[in-house]
Amino acid sequence: MSDIVRERPLVAPEAASLLAILRDGVPRTRAQLAELTGLARSTVSTRIDSLTASGLISPAGDAVSTGGRPPARIAFKPESRMIVAIDLGATHGVVAIADLAGTILDSESRRLAIADGPEPILDWALDTAKRLVAETGRPLADLVGVGIGVPGPVEHSTGMPINPPIMPGWDRFDIPAYVAASFAEVPVLVDNDVNLLALGEQATAWRDQSDLLFVKVATGIGAGIINGGRLQRGAQGSAGDLGHVRVPFTNETASHSAKDADLEALASGPAIARSLSAAGIPATTSEDVVALARSGNPDALQAIRQAGRDLGEVVATCVNLLNPSVVVIGGSISRVGEQLLAGVREVVYQRSTPLATQHVTITQSKAGETGGVLGAAIMVIQHVLDPETAHSTPVRR
Amino acid sequence: MSDIVRERPLVAPEAASLLAILRDGVPRTRAQLAELTGLARSTVSTRIDSLTASGLISPAGDAVSTGGRPPARIAFKPESRMIVAIDLGATHGVVAIADLAGTILDSESRRLAIADGPEPILDWALDTAKRLVAETGRPLADLVGVGIGVPGPVEHSTGMPINPPIMPGWDRFDIPAYVAASFAEVPVLVDNDVNLLALGEQATAWRDQSDLLFVKVATGIGAGIINGGRLQRGAQGSAGDLGHVRVPFTNETASHSAKDADLEALASGPAIARSLSAAGIPATTSEDVVALARSGNPDALQAIRQAGRDLGEVVATCVNLLNPSVVVIGGSISRVGEQLLAGVREVVYQRSTPLATQHVTITQSKAGETGGVLGAAIMVIQHVLDPETAHSTPVRR
Repeated sequence: MSDIVRERPLVAPEAASLLAILRDGVPRTRAQLAELTGLARSTVSTRIDSLTASGLISPAGDAVSTGGRPPARIAFKPESRMIVAIDLGATHGVVAIADLAGTILDSESRRLAIADGPEPILDWALDTAKRLVAETGRPLADLVGVGIGVPGPVEHSTGMPINPPIMPGWDRFDIPAYVAASFAEVPVLVDNDVNLLALGEQATAWRDQSDLLFVKVATGIGAGIINGGRLQRGAQGSAGDLGHVRVPFTNETASHSAKDADLEALASGPAIARSLSAAGIPATTSEDVVALARSGNPDALQAIRQAGRDLGEVVATCVNLLNPSVVVIGGSISRVGEQLLAGVREVVYQRSTPLATQHVTITQSKAGETGGVLGAAIMVIQHVLDPETAHSTPVRR
Repeated sequence: MSDIVRERPLVAPEAASLLAILRDGVPRTRAQLAELTGLARSTVSTRIDSLTASGLISPAGDAVSTGGRPPARIAFKPESRMIVAIDLGATHGVVAIADLAGTILDSESRRLAIADGPEPILDWALDTAKRLVAETGRPLADLVGVGIGVPGPVEHSTGMPINPPIMPGWDRFDIPAYVAASFAEVPVLVDNDVNLLALGEQATAWRDQSDLLFVKVATGIGAGIINGGRLQRGAQGSAGDLGHVRVPFTNETASHSAKDADLEALASGPAIARSLSAAGIPATTSEDVVALARSGNPDALQAIRQAGRDLGEVVATCVNLLNPSVVVIGGSISRVGEQLLAGVREVVYQRSTPLATQHVTITQSKAGETGGVLGAAIMVIQHVLDPETAHSTPVRR
């Protein structure tokens, strides 16, 4: 079996605080870095030398002189390393190469069926990744990690899916060990796709917000929680499982019997399709619902609005419990107009406490189709450059 | 108005990682510390010297020799500094002196009415604190901070209560500025009492668990959330507001109309008293309910059991959402036997998903009456010794 190994860090712990400052992309002089960190000039210079030797930073043009020779400025070099980022959904996969700033350099996607099982799906993803890496023309030594998102619960410490409902054949499959056959020398991190969507969304549109809730509504319903600036996975990695939360019953908004009140049974794509087909409109899947809504079918729009209200009952609880500043509604059902979002807003603003809702923004996802691979890349970047934020556990190889 | 000031840290940032190791109380040699940190022996020695100069560590007897002069061991000295910890409840206050390990050195408590307003309550607490500090016979320079818990929502960055329902006169009262008149030179940190109970509980019984939910059931209902090892306060500091979450309506456990389903309206002490008094048993307050339960009144025990079930509906949602390893039920209603806890367990084990409940422990509080002041002390200790975990914001004076 694979062992837990202690990785050699990409950044010496002492130099991490300097790099953290430079990662915003602004070039700075040694004097500015000394002032920002409170470190002695000589200490700053030693650490700059170590970061320069690793290739992570480099000189970046001179600052304006205040007399005499202009002081040299130093800048973060995100292009010095690369990451393989893989986002596997129920029916769609994306493979990308990213740099250390999370910029997607190249990507490829295809339709797939996650239920085909781990080997064929991962073989496609890894073959694609190897080809994309080769096409960069850069040495494999520049690769610092592989990040993978899957549509089910993952035990983050081992990278194994645990009882994933829509991923037959993947239960306790050792994804990191399988990936190691293709990329042996780097950490392999695996997480639930919704957690990675939360990271991707934060990086895209909410860099200054440290408390963000991302809710995905598609075939299933799940949430990614960023609290105190860090992704929260919980004790076993199953935090954010909103799909099986019971929905409070209310006379005003009830679309359901009091007996059948799991959120996923009310507000997921298939649940909306069921309610439409009970009304005589043929629909089975999330895709059917999306197609009907796109065509302007008033029953579909109404059903999505009601799903938004049911989702709103649970989001209101999350707002009280977590006090986020941003709630992002994503997933396929959210992308056909404003009906889902409007239903959520309607209920949350009515329910939650003033202190929690005063400053909360409830909005649609802005990260789009590459939010998942972006999040996968950020998970790896945090792991290698900022282990304290990543809250990382040892990685198995 | 008061300004945001940059405190001089008690521990130099470079030396923090060494101190973090020694804080477990185990004395170690320089060689052991070099091995544990990966630092050079000379670097370890420099940092040991700086920590010794500050009085935070000291020599602690020799290790067993492997030949030659036995190497000196170094130990953390928690008694080198002290903290004033104040826990203010609705009807009860505790003032304590603690050391840097969170050991309560002295404490004093009395009944009070928080509704009397900030000046008389804080005057009592501060006079008591000054006397307890004086009685230690130690210089005021040994004091590193004041931690205060209050029974209402607090904007942690400013230390001001915000719309606290049971604290008339305290809304936006500048507690840190008021405290500074008595203790001018140290940081003053203020938080919701339930957040501090969560910290105190973790320190008492769950030091190895990084995902803990503490739920207090008394006059109100609230939760303190520790996720990823850190107390989570949310964007405005109101995280954990369970009292206003709507309870899922179910035929099996319903004790209420579908219209009136806020958790606090169902399961708090006054709510239980209301249901008893509707059944002809005279009761108004939490204290009445506690007294009836202590006397073995079967209706009171039954009503507490039902309150536990209603609470369980919301705790089940929290378990799905946060995936904690420990859920602690505390507060006065939890301390009269096992009925409340039994009701919570009954519903949570029935509702939550297998991955979330597989390893979750649902239990009563073990910290007891001093859990609040212990938590207040730990808040200050984290702020001065471990700012990264404390996730601290600048402190106003």
